[in-house]
Amino acid sequence: MKISILGTATTKFGELWNISPRALAKEAMISALDASGLKAHQIDALFVGNMLSGILGNQANLGSLLVEELGVNIPAFRIEGACASGGLALHNAVNSLKAYQYRTALVLGIEKMTDHSQDEITNALMAAGSDEERLAGATFPGVYALMAQAYMQKYKVTEEDLAAVSVKNHYHGTLNSKAQFQFEVSISDVMKSSKIADPLKLLDCSPISDGAAAVVITSDENSKKIKNNVYIAASEVATDTLSLHDRKSFTSLESVVKASNNAYKKTGIKPKDIDVSEIHDCFSISEAIATEDLGFSEKGEGAIDIAKGKRTLFKGDIICNPSGGLKACGHPVGATGIKQIVEITEQLRGEAGKRQVEKAKIGLTHNVGGSGTVAAIHILRS
Amino acid sequence: MKISILGTATTKFGELWNISPRALAKEAMISALDASGLKAHQIDALFVGNMLSGILGNQANLGSLLVEELGVNIPAFRIEGACASGGLALHNAVNSLKAYQYRTALVLGIEKMTDHSQDEITNALMAAGSDEERLAGATFPGVYALMAQAYMQKYKVTEEDLAAVSVKNHYHGTLNSKAQFQFEVSISDVMKSSKIADPLKLLDCSPISDGAAAVVITSDENSKKIKNNVYIAASEVATDTLSLHDRKSFTSLESVVKASNNAYKKTGIKPKDIDVSEIHDCFSISEAIATEDLGFSEKGEGAIDIAKGKRTLFKGDIICNPSGGLKACGHPVGATGIKQIVEITEQLRGEAGKRQVEKAKIGLTHNVGGSGTVAAIHILRS
Repeated sequence: MKISILGTATTKFGELWNISPRALAKEAMISALDASGLKAHQIDALFVGNMLSGILGNQANLGSLLVEELGVNIPAFRIEGACASGGLALHNAVNSLKAYQYRTALVLGIEKMTDHSQDEITNALMAAGSDEERLAGATFPGVYALMAQAYMQKYKVTEEDLAAVSVKNHYHGTLNSKAQFQFEVSISDVMKSSKIADPLKLLDCSPISDGAAAVVITSDENSKKIKNNVYIAASEVATDTLSLHDRKSFTSLESVVKASNNAYKKTGIKPKDIDVSEIHDCFSISEAIATEDLGFSEKGEGAIDIAKGKRTLFKGDIICNPSGGLKACGHPVGATGIKQIVEITEQLRGEAGKRQVEKAKIGLTHNVGGSGTVAAIHILRS
Repeated sequence: MKISILGTATTKFGELWNISPRALAKEAMISALDASGLKAHQIDALFVGNMLSGILGNQANLGSLLVEELGVNIPAFRIEGACASGGLALHNAVNSLKAYQYRTALVLGIEKMTDHSQDEITNALMAAGSDEERLAGATFPGVYALMAQAYMQKYKVTEEDLAAVSVKNHYHGTLNSKAQFQFEVSISDVMKSSKIADPLKLLDCSPISDGAAAVVITSDENSKKIKNNVYIAASEVATDTLSLHDRKSFTSLESVVKASNNAYKKTGIKPKDIDVSEIHDCFSISEAIATEDLGFSEKGEGAIDIAKGKRTLFKGDIICNPSGGLKACGHPVGATGIKQIVEITEQLRGEAGKRQVEKAKIGLTHNVGGSGTVAAIHILRS
């Protein structure tokens, strides 16, 4: 069965203090429906990826709440797996279509974070962590800093090499009107920015963001009417331990290796076939490691390849994060996995405007929760 | 495709102050695996139904956390839809098998509530409610009391009639060694118990509970080896508005009517074919209304039929809540939907011991979130 993507939409990502979570979600849902040419009553189910609504806003039952906004009473689910909630929601939606349970589903990712204090947010995000890391005071920048230290030492990579990830993604962000940050940064800007957790500096870290993204997927005849049809060729998920200290390697995420290998195996697509991808660059080190785990770069060469421009729009081979990634487009955690799908769909349809990757036919999204504790990999093709 | 239930397990339900949520979940998962004759590495995915772990314990990413307890790194998901989280988790697990994405899945429902103060719990449970009802101070007992008032007035039903639900379910609870309350109550006990929200009294209300339940489901050849095989004939979900005031009727839940009608339609099973069912009796009024919405009783006769003994073990026709229901077995919210499946599976296998429904062949579970905002209906048959 072919699962096609009909309409897609994202809201602006950023500090959106003048809109409620409910209105933000509705904006993305209605825009995705409009783009699909469908009305709410033509949707069979809603899948919502969200991490923090309960913890920060004491609002559960988000699926039911949001179908009410659409004025329908279809089945609705909230799926949560930390920052991979969006990817996991899509995975369950895809399964429900393949099961012939539903024909057309709306998949929403939503997070509203910036209304809360930095301490509240830091504490809430640690909900994705392990007891041991919390007791040790190891927040996510701290945990990823450990990976960066291990990676730099093992492969003789410099802080400047890692900084190239942020430089690239900020450049891409200037081409995306939905991005939280639409300005460039230089290697020197990254190097001079405040230390967060050595060797990670402020400009190695993705921001706290508000945003929502939505896609309509379908297994039925609607898909034949789409110009430049894009479909989901693979949807794979895998997990790893919560704590870094329980893993064999600090410089590779087993969850990503496993999920992406399954996706490659099921589709026959190879890493070199990928034209464009959206990577979960919560920190600069994450993108470097991801490009290796996904098979885009050799071990130890991910950061170097990025620094050489091999992942950059207009001159790279496998373009990573044309949206600006989590770093520049922003990281409303539950929305990220769906925003990645929106970006890749636009790329494969040739509708990505100023940031269009030429002749993009096959794309991949890489959405991770915790410190790589869970990974959702999707392969899309035109 | 036939989806079979392999092993099932529940922990004791009650105030379990000497065990952590993690250990409680592990106990249920390991017991269900043992009952299935499978090892953790033979499971393809874990689906976790949980409502409050984030809000009460600041712990998200429960899927990943709990597969780590099993020592595997399979795909894992947390599904949330208030008190229907268990039923929704099973629904997504069933879809993933029908999609041929996974062959065997472990589905867990878990909630740990009693470690927290009454105020914390009340506040956390209101996370399933609407803004308007919260602003009005309408907690769930208050909202269900409104339904009870409307029902009693419309159908000339008395408080004593509603009390019969609790009397029946407490009687059933005396036959269930896992139940939180294993003692009988009389109509007079219910009538004399403290008023909570007129006309609902303490003994009309299900308790705050800890507990976990798990089932292993499979689409593959394993199922042929099971003695007394039980399979999931239907898994249907529907929603309704969050707020009672937005609904056409206070005496019927559209979510339940819609989901159960779909389940009946897809299976060809009729309400009168059901031998045994587990009903979401969060309040006595809920079971009365549910038996009507499910087609077991005529409109306005649900409570009367219960009072007449038509839903009681050993003398009823369609037996409701042999486990003791939410009222006597307990209501650890995320666990409830899975505990219902465990109970019906045991009934259909003829393994329910002292509370066995004779010749039970077809069973139904009715799991509801919020004030009927979401409903998950499963039909099981031997």
